[in-house]
This record gives sequence, structure tokens and C-alpha cells, in this order.
Amino acid sequence: MPEYKAPQKDIHFVLNDLLDFEQHYSQLPGCEEATPDMVSAIIEEGARFAERVLAPLNQVGDQEGCRFEDGQVTTPTGFREAYQQFVEGGWPSLSHSPEWGGQGLPDSLGMVVSELTSTANWAWGMYPGLSHGAMNTLEEHGTEEQKQTYLTKLVSGEWTGTMCLTEPHCGTDLGLLRTKAEPNADGSYAISGTKIFISAGEHDMADNIVHIVLARLPDAPAGTKGISLFIVPKHLPTADGGAGERNAVNCGSIEHKMGIHGNSTCVMNFDAATGYLIGPANKGLNCMFTFMNTARLGTAMQGLAHAEWGFQNSLPYARERLQMRALTGPAAPDKAADPIIVHPEVRKMLLTQKAFAEGGRALIYYCSMLVDKVKLADGEEKANADTQLAFLTPIAKAFLTEVGFESANHALQVYGGHGYISEWGMEQNVRDCRISMLYEGTTQIQALDLLGRKVLMTQGETLKSFTKVIHKFCKAAEEDPKMRAFTGPLAKLNSEWGDLTQQIGMKAMMNKEEVGAASVDYVMYSGYVTLAYFWARSAQAAQLKLAAGEGDAAFYRSKLTTARFYFERILPRTRGLVETMLSGSDNLMELPEDNFIF
Amino acid sequence: MPEYKAPQKDIHFVLNDLLDFEQHYSQLPGCEEATPDMVSAIIEEGARFAERVLAPLNQVGDQEGCRFEDGQVTTPTGFREAYQQFVEGGWPSLSHSPEWGGQGLPDSLGMVVSELTSTANWAWGMYPGLSHGAMNTLEEHGTEEQKQTYLTKLVSGEWTGTMCLTEPHCGTDLGLLRTKAEPNADGSYAISGTKIFISAGEHDMADNIVHIVLARLPDAPAGTKGISLFIVPKHLPTADGGAGERNAVNCGSIEHKMGIHGNSTCVMNFDAATGYLIGPANKGLNCMFTFMNTARLGTAMQGLAHAEWGFQNSLPYARERLQMRALTGPAAPDKAADPIIVHPEVRKMLLTQKAFAEGGRALIYYCSMLVDKVKLADGEEKANADTQLAFLTPIAKAFLTEVGFESANHALQVYGGHGYISEWGMEQNVRDCRISMLYEGTTQIQALDLLGRKVLMTQGETLKSFTKVIHKFCKAAEEDPKMRAFTGPLAKLNSEWGDLTQQIGMKAMMNKEEVGAASVDYVMYSGYVTLAYFWARSAQAAQLKLAAGEGDAAFYRSKLTTARFYFERILPRTRGLVETMLSGSDNLMELPEDNFIF
Repeated sequence: MPEYKAPQKDIHFVLNDLLDFEQHYSQLPGCEEATPDMVSAIIEEGARFAERVLAPLNQVGDQEGCRFEDGQVTTPTGFREAYQQFVEGGWPSLSHSPEWGGQGLPDSLGMVVSELTSTANWAWGMYPGLSHGAMNTLEEHGTEEQKQTYLTKLVSGEWTGTMCLTEPHCGTDLGLLRTKAEPNADGSYAISGTKIFISAGEHDMADNIVHIVLARLPDAPAGTKGISLFIVPKHLPTADGGAGERNAVNCGSIEHKMGIHGNSTCVMNFDAATGYLIGPANKGLNCMFTFMNTARLGTAMQGLAHAEWGFQNSLPYARERLQMRALTGPAAPDKAADPIIVHPEVRKMLLTQKAFAEGGRALIYYCSMLVDKVKLADGEEKANADTQLAFLTPIAKAFLTEVGFESANHALQVYGGHGYISEWGMEQNVRDCRISMLYEGTTQIQALDLLGRKVLMTQGETLKSFTKVIHKFCKAAEEDPKMRAFTGPLAKLNSEWGDLTQQIGMKAMMNKEEVGAASVDYVMYSGYVTLAYFWARSAQAAQLKLAAGEGDAAFYRSKLTTARFYFERILPRTRGLVETMLSGSDNLMELPEDNFIF
Repeated sequence: MPEYKAPQKDIHFVLNDLLDFEQHYSQLPGCEEATPDMVSAIIEEGARFAERVLAPLNQVGDQEGCRFEDGQVTTPTGFREAYQQFVEGGWPSLSHSPEWGGQGLPDSLGMVVSELTSTANWAWGMYPGLSHGAMNTLEEHGTEEQKQTYLTKLVSGEWTGTMCLTEPHCGTDLGLLRTKAEPNADGSYAISGTKIFISAGEHDMADNIVHIVLARLPDAPAGTKGISLFIVPKHLPTADGGAGERNAVNCGSIEHKMGIHGNSTCVMNFDAATGYLIGPANKGLNCMFTFMNTARLGTAMQGLAHAEWGFQNSLPYARERLQMRALTGPAAPDKAADPIIVHPEVRKMLLTQKAFAEGGRALIYYCSMLVDKVKLADGEEKANADTQLAFLTPIAKAFLTEVGFESANHALQVYGGHGYISEWGMEQNVRDCRISMLYEGTTQIQALDLLGRKVLMTQGETLKSFTKVIHKFCKAAEEDPKMRAFTGPLAKLNSEWGDLTQQIGMKAMMNKEEVGAASVDYVMYSGYVTLAYFWARSAQAAQLKLAAGEGDAAFYRSKLTTARFYFERILPRTRGLVETMLSGSDNLMELPEDNFIF
């Protein structure tokens, strides 16, 4: 049976050696509690919970799935109990404000913990994950009373939350949505409509579910400017804060889907359900963006999660499975055959997973520092963090989920035919991972967001905010001969990145289709360069430790080897992307719609 | 519900305009029956059967799967009846010798028909597909009596066949296999052992199942040189050729797996089952190679099948789903939004599928001509076909299944979140496709076979047999200005292909790991160049037709557009592969086995 072991050593490498979280926390107001000891203790405890409670339920969740009967959803065996333990452990409140019952620890630390729970059991992790989105929305846009009523219950974990955006005819294009909100005499609204793909929309884990719902007020302007945000609880709150009368929101069915079977994906019917406006009328989509950015980083985490999980579970198989001899002669002459890890192509699949998992961890943790700064810093530091985060979020989401899926497939492939058999768990990992490139905006949507909105609409400002960081790093390290193999190619790519952007920008002035036609290649290119930066930094951090004779030398040498692998075996993929993103939109646009098939 | 429509127009394009099957058949002895009219009629009839009988069962097969009870396997609703119709239609006998009841049509025509049935319903198609492998083995290696007893029943379709190779501890490395064959007094053998992953090993479709089994004779040499081949029927044949006494071969269980649920994947237990030696003792693996080459081409077909199926089913969605506006302004101003086919990145996903499906068809049909020639031609023509086929088979298998899986994922991605939901069928297509990179030798094994065995061990002879074909084509077309956009890049790649091979060959003389370390990049590179050749030829064929004013101009223009797309948007992927395949084996081999995870 597949297992999960929290990669604590690598987590500490990223937090301490690479990104210096200690300094980060010491400089930010409100992070005083996050001392190194506290951080270690939380990771240790989170790891234990993820390894012992959640990981053993991962396969069960897939096999049993959620059951739907008479409007009720029953989650797989053990999910409910695990959630109770999660609540008792105080985990939902970790990074929320003490004002609403939270522990007031930084968001970044919450993200580290969510890596642990999510990797151990993604389908389970989505239940608290969705709550987190609802909490952020309430914290930022709710009234005091709304926070008192709903946020405290979400922070304690007694209630869970959802985000209700998608409708049958619209997902990406929320401007088309039809769910209506009619004012009631008491200031509340009657919400009517159908929402689909509502993760954790109905379940048996908590007393109440707080739906955050996008809907239209009467006479609202058409399109995205006429959308408002509402709180629609499953049970209306009682005067003393309990879960009272049942509201007219019901789960109509759950979806049969490729993976994440342990999470309920619900059709939610609102039949004049009582809802409460949150945030300004007709500004719902703006309010939602707060949530969406968090959700996108959370989904980027899914790429990391499945890469890490697959890597951990394909490595032991590669070391145990005996098949054929090494090309250079028997490596284990006393055995009937060599373990397949002797074969270069098996190693390539393992190293690819390792490079994406560990590099992805560095990228996401870096983003989580930016999240802290956006929330807690001031002035230029905050503004700069905001710019960088806006730029890196679609890259992290698109790139890490694409390479996470690639990694999950490598893990399956290491098992040969056995990878296709359910009991090993590798095919579940592939199925569970596949959703990550779809929800919270497909890869294609992230790509347009990056190249169109984020980069070209700001005349490249957001790009520069990050290429500057890379430039500074390369400049500072250029005297170090040991770093040249990394800084040389990285500096070249960093300047190419700007050039490519300019070329596409020029073409786009003549023809807007050029933006779309270049966008996915551009976001993937951006991802490869971004990860190269983190791998170069990792190599530097490892070399410093090795030079100082500190820590586990084998660990640091492994970092160096993986960095070299990344630069020599992964980064050349950018060569094809440069050619295709500049190849123009004609080769995509010229075929008439009627002439694709005859 | 997803549908399948046989792409008859493209099939005829490949057969007639591109590869000139009429001339091919007219030149080969034994292909007299395959007149253009006969070919068309068979395709027409096969298309009808695939579209009306098999396609509607594809989703049913996935949802119901096979059931196992008391050693019996029940196939999904309708599978058995469809097989009866298949037998009544005479399809199993199509390309087998009249001597054993066959229709004596060429193998290539059988492959065209198998494209139809396989694309409509891969899981179903595996039942007759496995029989086909058993028939080829019997035809080539069986005695007259064995052919009379077994082959006639397989050709008629009354019985089906399997190939029993894999054991729990060995798949790739058959030298390790343990199944024993002890001689009986009557000249038969008692076969004992366990085989796994036996497709169609047990089912309810036919009266008898003929297992072709690899096993070891007593005192056989160790390793691959001590393996013999046996016929082990489920029911021993009676004197009058019927299915008699039950043999001691039983299905112990069926696997729960990622996809192809409609096909039974069986654990087969042989408990001193009666078997009959086929071919010379200890030469079983050599005999098996006949089968394996056919099976590998058959699996290459799976890449084409899922690319074609996904393309057909994502295109209508892209034309119907309304979401967002075109970047250049509303394309369908009368609708609430534009169909998503207006977006460049959606078109890219569609065109990628189209390019791989249609290009893959050309490659496989070309290989099928080589199969005909190996079987029916003489002297140099036969030898040359044999060399080319040996070279192209691992390319077709590895490359077409990898890009087939990519294509299936694009098809799913076109649907956005809906692609993840089972009812649309797109996620089934991805799951069903995933096995193709694993069975009949993983991508990694094909890659080693190509670069190690086929190319380097022959000092590049097999490669040259095909680069010569490309060279000749480019040379002949170089005067044509309309072809320069294709022949220019193709000729360059063709010569690069040789250079790369030489460089790797030189490195391999110093260090054999270089072969392994380059192999997957090499097979993928080879695939991209091979398909470029077929796309260049397709462009030429289309241009000739357009110049002559013959046929459907829109169809031929679509070919030209897709060829351009392939050259500008797909072929640049070779740039990264060139770099990585030459990057040396150190970056893969230097990390000690113990230092992958800490």
C-alpha cells in the first residue's frame, strides 16, 4: 500500500537554508509567534497527522467515494473522524486572526501545513481547503456581524465553507451567470439558481455549510459588472450562533468523475434560499478575486502534492523491482536481476519528479512569503510583493499542475504494467492530479491571465518585478566559479524572457490573436525559467552548507545533483517553446471552423 | 454521449492519395482480391459495424466492467452479442490464409479494419486483437495438425486466443520466468505456474480459449535461452474438433485497473495443465518475437485510436460551448458568447490531436504495407521492408502512444471541468489510453530497442534504410517552391538524425549508459521526424490534388494547413530533445541510489 512521509528535511531546507523564513517572520508585524521552534513543532505535528491519520484514508477515499442518497452525502469511511481530529487539533484556526478565534500565525505557515495534509490525501484536504477560501472572503469583505456569525464557526472548524461560482452554462465566463438574488423585506435575499461543480457542497463532516454564492440582483448590469456575492448557509444561524432552520439550498446530485472520489462534487440547487449580501452590490467578482488568487496558489500546491506523492511511492519500487541488468554489467550480481533504478531512463523519471516536487516547493513557499507581505507589510514592500504575487500566481498554477501531472505519470510509468493496477495507488495519483489543470481556471486561462492581463497590460511591469530579482541574484553570484554552470544559463534565459515578451507585445499590437497563440507556451516557458531560479538558489544554498561543513553533506550534494539535472535535462525544453511561441497565430487561426473534420 | 464516426475520407486519402495502396496490392502476389472496390466495400462495412455496434458499447464497457465470479468472467452488456455479430460477419478471418478458412486478404487491410473497431471500442477490440496474435504465432510456428486443430477455430472466431508471457516477478525481463513444462508420457506437457496481466484470459464470448504460453522445460538453460512456447487450451479439443474436457488452467482473479474495464485482465493459474510444444524447444522467445512485433504495431494503433476518438469528440464541444469572446472581438455577436473554437489555444489543442491522429494513420498504414511486403515479397524488397519495419515498429509504438496520450488529454482539456466528469467520456479516453505506454514493452523498452538493438547494433543500417527514403523524397521535391517550407526543414532534420546517432554511438563506445540515457529522447525525436516526413508527403499529395482541381478542395487545404501547423508548432519540440539526448549520462547516473530522498 502506498505511504506518505512528510518531507520534513526538504521543507526545512526551503524554509531555512533557501528562503530564510526566520528573518522573514522576524521582520513582519504579526509574525512574532512564528519562532523557529514554533514552526518546527507545528510542522512536526502536522506531519504526524498527515502521515498517520490522512494518508491511510487516501486509497479508501478513492475506492469508496462519496455516496449520495436523498440529498445527503456520506463521505468515505474515516473522513468524518479525521475531520473531527483536525478540528480538535485546532488546525482550521492556524492562520486566522485571534479576533475570530484564530491562532494568528502567518498564512505562509498555514500553506506549509496544507502541503502536508494535501499531499497525504488531496480529496480530504479539499474540505478544509474550501473553508479556507470562504474564510478569507469573509475576513476581507464581511461585516462585523457576518464575521461574528460565520467566520468564528469556520475558524473553529465547526462549520465548513464552499465557493459557488460555476453554473452549467458558464465556468470560465462568469459574466454569463444567471443565479438570481431577489431582495426580501428583512434585508436578506432570496437566492435562486443552480450551481455545479461545488466541491464539498454537501457532506457529513460538520453541522453547517456556509456557501459563498455569486448571483445577480434584479436590474443588475449584464456581464461581469452585475454580479454580487452572498452568504447562503445550509442552516440559518440561530440567535445563539447555532445551526438552526434548514435553508432552501439542496444538493441535487454528485458527479461521477475521474478522480478525487473522496471529495463530493455537488450540483447545488438554490430555491429562493435565504442569502445575505457580502461586500458591495455588483462588485462580487472583484471580491471573489481575493479568493481566487488564494485558490490558485492552493491548486498550484496540488501539482507539488502529486509530484511529491508519486516520487515517494515510485522510488521504493524502483529500488526493489528486479528486472534486467545494468547496461554496464550486473550491479547486483547476487540477485536474479538488478533493481530497475540502475537504468538511466528510470532514474530520469525519478529525477524529473524530484526536480519538480522540490523546485515546486521552493516556488510555492516563496509565493507564500509574498502572501504574508501583501497582508502584513507596508508601502513599497507590500506593493512589490503584490506585483510579484500577481505575476507568479498564474505561473505557479499552470506550470506546477502541468508538470505535476507529468510527474504523476512518470511515477505510474516506473511501475510498468503494475502502475495501471489500482492496488498500487499510482493510477489514482494520476486521476486525482488531472483535475488540477482544470479547476480554478484551466492552464489556458492562467496563460491568458499571465501574458495578457498581468504582463502586457502592465507594459511588462510585473515581469520586471521578478526578472529584477533573478538579475540581482545572478549578478551577486557571478564571481563564484561554482555557480557559473547555473547563473550563466539563468542570466541568459532571464534576458531572453524580456526579449520574447517584447516581441510578442509588438506582434500583439498588430493582431490580438498573437497573445492567445503564444500564451500557453509563454506560461510554460516562464515556469521553466522560474524554477531554474529556485534551483540555482538551491544549488547556492547547498554549496554554502557544503563549504561550511554544516549539516548532512549527502543531502546537500543531492541538491546540487538535482540542480544540475534540472539545468541539463529539463531546461532545454524552453528551446522548442521559444520557437513555437514566436511562430505566429496564423498556423492556429487559418483553418476554417468547418474544415477540422471531413 | 460520445460518438464515433469512421474517418473514411481520411482513410481513403492515406490509402489512395498518399500511399497508393492500389499499386501496392497490384504488385504483391496474394493481394489480387484486394481491388479498390473490395477495399472500399470492406471499409464501408467495417465502419458500419464499428459505428453502430461497437461504439455504443464503449461507455457501457467502462461503467460495468468485467465481473469475476467462481472462476468465470462476465463481460459487459452487449460485448458477447457484438462478438457474435463480428464472427457472423466473417471479420476474424479477413487477413488469414484460405487454407485455414481465412479470406486471404492482405494484413494491411486487416489493420485498417482494426483501426475502425479499436477506435470505436478499444476494450472490446482487444478480444479479437489477442486472437490475432495467437493466430499469427500458430500460422508461423505451428505444425499442420496444430493449425488444423486450433488455427481454423481461431480464424473462424469460434475460439479466441491469448498470449501468456508476464509473471508476477517478471514482465520486461522474461529470462526470469518460472512457469514449468514437464513432459507427459503422451508427448504433451504438464504446464504449471502463474501468469498475470493476461488480457482476455477468461471471458464469456467464445466456446474455448487458446492460450499461447511461455514456460521452461526441465533442464532448460537459465535465462531467455531456456524458454519454450506451448499451446494450452482452456478445453482440450475433442476428436471431431470441438471444445472437450476442461483443462487445468483457471482464472484466479481479474485486476481492478485504471481503464479498459471492458477487457478482462486475468491472473491465470496453470496446475499441471496439458500443453503442446509449439516451435522448437528453448526457442520460444524467438517464436514470440513474431507475435511481439505485430502486437507492438497493434499497440501503436491505440495511440492513433485515442487521438482520433478524442479529436472527434472534443471538436463538436469546442464548436458548441459558448464562453468568452474572441480576442479580436465577438465572432458570434448574436450569441451570449463565442464558441470556444475561436480561441487560439483551443484550436492548438484540436490541431495537435488532428496532426497526431492523421499523421499517425499515415505512419501505421505505411508500416502495414511493410508487413505485407515482409510476408509476400521476395529478395531485396522483402529484406528492405523487414529492415524498415524493425526500425519503425518501436518508433510507432513509443511515439504514437505517448502523443496519443497527450492528445487524449487535450481532448479532455477542451471540455474544461466537464472533461473530468465521467458522463462525457473524455476521462475514460484518457484512462483507456494510459495502458498503451506500458504494455507490449514500455516506452523506455521501445526506446532501448530502437537505439540499442535496432540502430547502434546494426551500425545505423536500419536508420539509413529509412533516412534514405526521406532523402529521396526531399530530393525529388526540392524543385517545387510550394514544398520548400516542408522539404527544407525535413532534409535538415533527416541529416541531423544521422549526426545525432553517430555522436551517441561514439559516446556509447566509451560508456554504455549513454545509450540508455539518450534513448527516450531519441525515440521521441525519431517519432517527430518520422511524422514530419508523412506530413510533408501529405502536403505534397494535397497540393497535387489542388493543382489538378480534383476532389474536395477544402479537404486538401485542411491537409496543407495541418502540415504547416505540424511543422511550425510541433516539430520545434525536437530542439530540446537534441540538447537533452546529448547532455550525457552523468546527470542521470551520479546520484547515489540512497540519496534520492532524505
